Amino acid sequence: MRANDLIAKKRDGQALTEEELAYLIGGYVNDKIPDYQVAAWAMAVYFQGMTAEERAILTKLMVQSGEQIDLASIEGLKVDKHSTGGVGDVTTLILAPILAAMGLKVAKMSGRGLGHTGGTIDKLESIPGFRVDLTRAEFIEQVKRSGLALVGQTGQLVPADKKLYALRDVTATVESIPLIASSIMSKKIAAGSDLIMLDVKVGHGAFMKTFEEAEELAQVMVEIGKQLGRRTAAVITSMDQPLGSMIGNALEVREAIALLQPRAYEGSSAISPAMVVTIELAGRMAYLAGQSTSIDVGKKEALDHLRSGRALAVFRQWIEDQGGNGAVVDEPEKYLPRATEKEFFLANQSGYVQRLEALAVGRAASLLGAGREKKDDTIDMAAGIVLLKRIGDQVEVGDALAELHYNNGEHREEALALLREAYYIAEETPAREPLLLGEVMPRDT
Amino acid sequence: MRANDLIAKKRDGQALTEEELAYLIGGYVNDKIPDYQVAAWAMAVYFQGMTAEERAILTKLMVQSGEQIDLASIEGLKVDKHSTGGVGDVTTLILAPILAAMGLKVAKMSGRGLGHTGGTIDKLESIPGFRVDLTRAEFIEQVKRSGLALVGQTGQLVPADKKLYALRDVTATVESIPLIASSIMSKKIAAGSDLIMLDVKVGHGAFMKTFEEAEELAQVMVEIGKQLGRRTAAVITSMDQPLGSMIGNALEVREAIALLQPRAYEGSSAISPAMVVTIELAGRMAYLAGQSTSIDVGKKEALDHLRSGRALAVFRQWIEDQGGNGAVVDEPEKYLPRATEKEFFLANQSGYVQRLEALAVGRAASLLGAGREKKDDTIDMAAGIVLLKRIGDQVEVGDALAELHYNNGEHREEALALLREAYYIAEETPAREPLLLGEVMPRDT
Repeated sequence: MRANDLIAKKRDGQALTEEELAYLIGGYVNDKIPDYQVAAWAMAVYFQGMTAEERAILTKLMVQSGEQIDLASIEGLKVDKHSTGGVGDVTTLILAPILAAMGLKVAKMSGRGLGHTGGTIDKLESIPGFRVDLTRAEFIEQVKRSGLALVGQTGQLVPADKKLYALRDVTATVESIPLIASSIMSKKIAAGSDLIMLDVKVGHGAFMKTFEEAEELAQVMVEIGKQLGRRTAAVITSMDQPLGSMIGNALEVREAIALLQPRAYEGSSAISPAMVVTIELAGRMAYLAGQSTSIDVGKKEALDHLRSGRALAVFRQWIEDQGGNGAVVDEPEKYLPRATEKEFFLANQSGYVQRLEALAVGRAASLLGAGREKKDDTIDMAAGIVLLKRIGDQVEVGDALAELHYNNGEHREEALALLREAYYIAEETPAREPLLLGEVMPRDT
Repeated sequence: MRANDLIAKKRDGQALTEEELAYLIGGYVNDKIPDYQVAAWAMAVYFQGMTAEERAILTKLMVQSGEQIDLASIEGLKVDKHSTGGVGDVTTLILAPILAAMGLKVAKMSGRGLGHTGGTIDKLESIPGFRVDLTRAEFIEQVKRSGLALVGQTGQLVPADKKLYALRDVTATVESIPLIASSIMSKKIAAGSDLIMLDVKVGHGAFMKTFEEAEELAQVMVEIGKQLGRRTAAVITSMDQPLGSMIGNALEVREAIALLQPRAYEGSSAISPAMVVTIELAGRMAYLAGQSTSIDVGKKEALDHLRSGRALAVFRQWIEDQGGNGAVVDEPEKYLPRATEKEFFLANQSGYVQRLEALAVGRAASLLGAGREKKDDTIDMAAGIVLLKRIGDQVEVGDALAELHYNNGEHREEALALLREAYYIAEETPAREPLLLGEVMPRDT
């Protein structure tokens, strides 16, 4: 077998066999196939795509390239949720305690943020003492005991993806649905959960810019999951404006804690966008897990766990289990890092907020110190942006639209310019866009 | 500028600017852009093509990557001919002396053969004493003195092509018209001639399998030549059967010598296919050079130089100029290497030769020792195949179709099997296919 012939085969639109893909991917991981051949293959895949069978085989080969977490010793159904990345997406921080409160087992591995999108691991590390580097034994024990643990993803998990992604990142081959899907699914499958719930973000602030692309990615990932024996489903949700109203690591933990408070669900106040998505996800996961008789029953159960304070109690236990101080849920201002500088960003015209572009807000927060441009940049846990006005809100000239939090104001001007781009104010009231744009549920449920 | 963005631009179907291509190609030659990025770009080019402007810029950048031969000190019009490679293509060996006899200057650099196609340098080296490694000064002096010199291409000529071709060869990106065209044209332009005549071969035994591909390649090359200020034209000729009837290095020199003999043009005997192509090329080159008033007049002049023995005399002088013994033209059997073993290949059915596949014949000759599979294989100068029957010939069971010449019969069986595939004999007489299938002449002539 020659790599050149396999590249030519894909270039000419044919599917590679399992043996052929194993030769290519296995050879690449073992440094026997050089990166220039894999780069040419990846570009051929960009143009020619992959069959469903090829995608499943590629994903399986990537999973087999490294460690596979064995969660068999944990009783009950192990569940996982993955978002394709957005701005102000605090979903995992709220969803994980709700699922554990329902009796599901959340043994989750999470990544760090890059660019304008945040990572759950970074957010949790803003809680003083919180350890994301549990040993494998500590991780499993904690899930058995408390139903929930979350650790950083180790390099032993899917080394093929690590190597392939680094290559795609510099060869303009990131934007390929089969390669994106196999990259995400290989990590989810290697992490060992039985049920995988995917949240594919679409919009200005997301990796997928159109609904069609997002739906295709969702379908491809659900199909890979099914072929490799995992219960998998996906929702497609909007990322045109930031999901939460606080963007930044400690700020997002603060927002999650606020949204976990039972008092947030008293009376008739509208549920925030972050909670809408969280509850849609929780309802589907409860239903797919066989925990509730329908999605709606599952959503109601999720809301019950929030209202009763049970989800908040699980969250507090989780923080303490991983070395943090549980009192953070009572006095987040006291225990979480705070920025030395705060500055309002004001409206320069009156009207309604028509657009609030997630990408620009995420980049502004990143410039204040909340994100990484490169993999080894350090993060300022306290830095970020609090949105005081969102799409649909009425504003007057001089109203505070957002508040900047920072310790180092070096890039303050650029951040303000980005916010000026992000907020588009006009006279008309904007049309209300739904948050949940679509879903892909497995056919056999 | 980032290479990744340039790859993405091409991937998305946009044209790169001169500055961008210079960054990519210059960076590659200077080892600043890694091969995996160039491989991804080449695959993107395979799918998206290049604009005429991009092709001319790429060719110019490749030319500028190395030495450019300065032929200005040679008076008169310097002319060059290039074939895209075929089996039994002795054209250069006959055409060069005809052109020199016409008073044109032939200062030619030629490559070695690879795979089933032969190289003119290898063929000439079968003449004992013939030197292909003239110094630059010797080369120029010889052209001034005798009108004709031919040397091997040095590594200083177009190093960018050398590096890029080696990469394309292992990344399934050889088969891209803009990349093939810029590779060929960069070498022709760097070699310094004023007039470039291209012979694009099409058919089973050629790199271009269809007329459409061949015509596109011809058009693209002529356009590049024009944009870079060289008088350029192309013919498209058939390579379904081997052009000459002797395949192998010394054998092809023998055939060239036979075809240069004035007696070959006495009487009314049909002109061999190799001569048909040679005379078509010579006629066009004489016309484009302003040497004759029309292509037909040029063709007649070419034939006159053959009939008068003037072309043969120039050939003899050429051999002597480069260190060989001119007596080879009188007694080729005596001075050229001969194989120890000869063996007939016989017809196993009666009828007419319908097909005689050049690729299989070329591969059979290569297996007997006439060619290289890899760049550093050594060649057996005496080995090869003499075709005794060609397309259209009537044969009886047991007739000799061809004669194998070899010193080492290790792969004799495989060669015979390939010849069995190559000859297809049937009852009907085959349709006569023309040799000259098309041409691309510059618009301003």
